[in-house]
Amino acid sequence: MRRTASFLVTGVALVAATAAVALASAGERPAPVLGQLPPGYRDWRLISVAREAGDLDDIRAVLGNDAAIRAYRDGKTTNFPDGAIIARLAWKFTPSEENNAAIGRAQSFVAGPPVNGVQFMVKDSKNYAATGGWGYAQFDDGKPAGESTLTSCFPCHALMKERDSVFTRWAP
Amino acid sequence: MRRTASFLVTGVALVAATAAVALASAGERPAPVLGQLPPGYRDWRLISVAREAGDLDDIRAVLGNDAAIRAYRDGKTTNFPDGAIIARLAWKFTPSEENNAAIGRAQSFVAGPPVNGVQFMVKDSKNYAATGGWGYAQFDDGKPAGESTLTSCFPCHALMKERDSVFTRWAP
Repeated sequence: MRRTASFLVTGVALVAATAAVALASAGERPAPVLGQLPPGYRDWRLISVAREAGDLDDIRAVLGNDAAIRAYRDGKTTNFPDGAIIARLAWKFTPSEENNAAIGRAQSFVAGPPVNGVQFMVKDSKNYAATGGWGYAQFDDGKPAGESTLTSCFPCHALMKERDSVFTRWAP
Repeated sequence: MRRTASFLVTGVALVAATAAVALASAGERPAPVLGQLPPGYRDWRLISVAREAGDLDDIRAVLGNDAAIRAYRDGKTTNFPDGAIIARLAWKFTPSEENNAAIGRAQSFVAGPPVNGVQFMVKDSKNYAATGGWGYAQFDDGKPAGESTLTSCFPCHALMKERDSVFTRWAP
């Protein structure tokens, strides 16, 4: 009886291990870099702002968690520490009729509704060694974007070699 | 001797009081709304971003201190509480050659050097009752701008009556 129980336990463990290996080797649906939007990211501090014209046609803010902001402040942007997260929020680039009316000139553009997802890059030099030490994530309407959306992140970011794959410079 | 001392003290107090009244009644150089840049304002949370074309030609971020952010979050933007401070930072609207090269299209604009001063509006419904309950301040290279720079703030802001003189809406 003891031998039977032992065999069963061994058998269950074996099945579990096999399943884990099978999942890992499938490799088609890796765990997302961020399972959900990082809590409080909208309160993170500002790194800089930008405007992308063309198809994106947005105005954007780049925010950083404490580790990212510290790296910028300490001039360590050639090698961000593990745990640093940089967020990119974007809104439709929108002429402001009310601002233009108030100032008497058509020159004011403001943030309209959110567009182009909310993007994150997460520094983890071990887990994301294959993509320059950064994992990339995007959320559309709060839901993680598919892997296909993210495949274009790394090749472009990798061009910013001297700044650890980060496009955005600190705005003083 | 005691009487002499008492007289001297009274006399000194009288001179001081007279000087204060004289200063107040001169009224030409009122105390600036903010004597110096509020410590830590660059770490305040983001309200929104914007772009002013024309002569200003900047890209900007509007940040708020805790009281201001709370008012936005609680939907109390028709009557900001005393103590709320809103900051407007601006940078030269600058095409990014390095971004454009990386993405292969000329569409990227980033924050260049700071321009057009750093501006603040400070809610104090008693002290700034004459200007809608807000005091206006600007710092150029860290130094308070002259009163003449600030005279144009209130008339424009006052047009935003339904939003307590505040142009900027919250960017979600």
